[in-house]
Amino acid sequence: MAGDVSVNFDMITAAAHRLKGHARRTPLLSSPFLDRIAGRRVFVKAECLQHTGSFKFRGAWSAITALPDTARGVIAFSSGNHAQGVAYAASLKGLSAVIIMPRDAPAIKIANTRALGAEVVLYDRALEDRDALGLALAAERGLELVQPFDHPQVIGGQGSVGLEIAQQAQAEGVEAAQVLVCCGGGGLTSGIALALEQVAPLMQVRTVEPEGFDDVAQSLATGQVVENPTRSGLCDAIVTPRPGALTWPILQRLCGPGMVVSDEEALRAMGLAYERLKLVLEPGGAVALAAALFHGDDITGEAVIVTASGGNVDRPVFMDALAMGDADANR
Amino acid sequence: MAGDVSVNFDMITAAAHRLKGHARRTPLLSSPFLDRIAGRRVFVKAECLQHTGSFKFRGAWSAITALPDTARGVIAFSSGNHAQGVAYAASLKGLSAVIIMPRDAPAIKIANTRALGAEVVLYDRALEDRDALGLALAAERGLELVQPFDHPQVIGGQGSVGLEIAQQAQAEGVEAAQVLVCCGGGGLTSGIALALEQVAPLMQVRTVEPEGFDDVAQSLATGQVVENPTRSGLCDAIVTPRPGALTWPILQRLCGPGMVVSDEEALRAMGLAYERLKLVLEPGGAVALAAALFHGDDITGEAVIVTASGGNVDRPVFMDALAMGDADANR
Repeated sequence: MAGDVSVNFDMITAAAHRLKGHARRTPLLSSPFLDRIAGRRVFVKAECLQHTGSFKFRGAWSAITALPDTARGVIAFSSGNHAQGVAYAASLKGLSAVIIMPRDAPAIKIANTRALGAEVVLYDRALEDRDALGLALAAERGLELVQPFDHPQVIGGQGSVGLEIAQQAQAEGVEAAQVLVCCGGGGLTSGIALALEQVAPLMQVRTVEPEGFDDVAQSLATGQVVENPTRSGLCDAIVTPRPGALTWPILQRLCGPGMVVSDEEALRAMGLAYERLKLVLEPGGAVALAAALFHGDDITGEAVIVTASGGNVDRPVFMDALAMGDADANR
Repeated sequence: MAGDVSVNFDMITAAAHRLKGHARRTPLLSSPFLDRIAGRRVFVKAECLQHTGSFKFRGAWSAITALPDTARGVIAFSSGNHAQGVAYAASLKGLSAVIIMPRDAPAIKIANTRALGAEVVLYDRALEDRDALGLALAAERGLELVQPFDHPQVIGGQGSVGLEIAQQAQAEGVEAAQVLVCCGGGGLTSGIALALEQVAPLMQVRTVEPEGFDDVAQSLATGQVVENPTRSGLCDAIVTPRPGALTWPILQRLCGPGMVVSDEEALRAMGLAYERLKLVLEPGGAVALAAALFHGDDITGEAVIVTASGGNVDRPVFMDALAMGDADANR
């Protein structure tokens, strides 16, 4: 994205326009049982129902439809939700997509990304330089790089979630609320915050991260970008090492204070989403719901809105959540 | 109820009007992975996302909002989805609800129904006459009986699913398709069929039932009401013994031929709905998807629409589905 690194509200409305009829307008769900646990009304923006099982399709479609007509294809580094979003968006748009993945990525993720129409290029984490490989391929084939969060059009696309939240909350009679967003690199959070700043100024966006990966919460608290010491965890979708160069100034200006939940709380939230909403959430997509349910003392207002940002979870982990959440089923 | 036992299209549009802003307009979902298995486009009407986890809320709300202002409360016989739908609809409407359940119903179902605001009256299956008990209570307290399917306003409410299917399918460019509906007593199926007859005449409604409980398929095939020999099974939501007195003439006029799937196919469909749609389905709510995925040779057309009618499933059964469907995850 050489040169243009600004993101503004107009880019969000333009992205929302391009997404219309292509991304799903996911429902804002609720349950009296969850309200009772949280001690307030809880509204869940079910982005796990988005194409490819996460909000990532929005940013990918936004970025791909903003490319010049001369673009030959796209390239992305990801073994997760971003990979699937980019692969599917490119395939719907009739563009080729190359996804660079580590050779030891789960076979099912490689197969899914291929099935969505992408060419998967595998690299060896120990022996190869991922970025050099990707840049060489991009130059050789004339491919445009789609970053997972530090990309203005990606942030613009994720911001469409904020526009929908504002409309759907208003239809429920909610004008003022804290909006808890599952936060990795901050693309979704910053997009939602930019959207709500304009269309629902009484809403306050707060980041939610898993324990041990609270780089954004600490960065917001200290005013300095803080990096996580560790790199992998249960909430794999959101264990980014630090906020992005583009997203951080937006997060700092509009969001906070950051919230932190335990892995166990994320699993319990998954069990309750299964029981009360009939949704499949992945751990990283359940942290905001976990914060609403189990950290209510740290929240203000009669209603709280949370993103359920993805549902791509391996079966053994989901079964753990069902087993762990069993006690909560009777709450 | 007494006297008026006709159901017509106007009752469906009137019910849809009363439901607006109260029932959820559930999404029509799809996945390229499911399309590939089915060999055609598959659209899934996700009624498991309805309030209380099944379409039953629609019929309950429709019936309750059609009561005269003098009504003091409602009564229903059910230990399942109908109970929760009636309890929640009554509570939102500020009416009392009595739900008659067998004393050996699962504790969680009794607790859920109570938590939704209903008074649960337990009876002993071996020693007490459920109907006599219910009628005595209804007379004593002036309560209106809400039948699970043989009730015009209930069928009218369920028919709102058909109106939404027609609109949502049209938005996807689909005007002609077979519409497969999970069928117990036939309230949902007959309501959808009456709606589509008017607004989408190129759609053909077909019932789907589990093996051993194919009373409707057999009744449609023979032209005579046939009864199931057995009474309980995995697909508990739809193991009704025979089509209803009100629903049968509608089913006979508008629906068929009926389809039948195995319990194993229902479980595999649950596993694929988890994997590809991020939805929690119960076995009885997954039979229509199972028919679309595994009985494609018996279906015509480039697209098929299925109801995913409920998601209230006990955790051990859901875990069985996840284990069984594992092989399908790589398809």
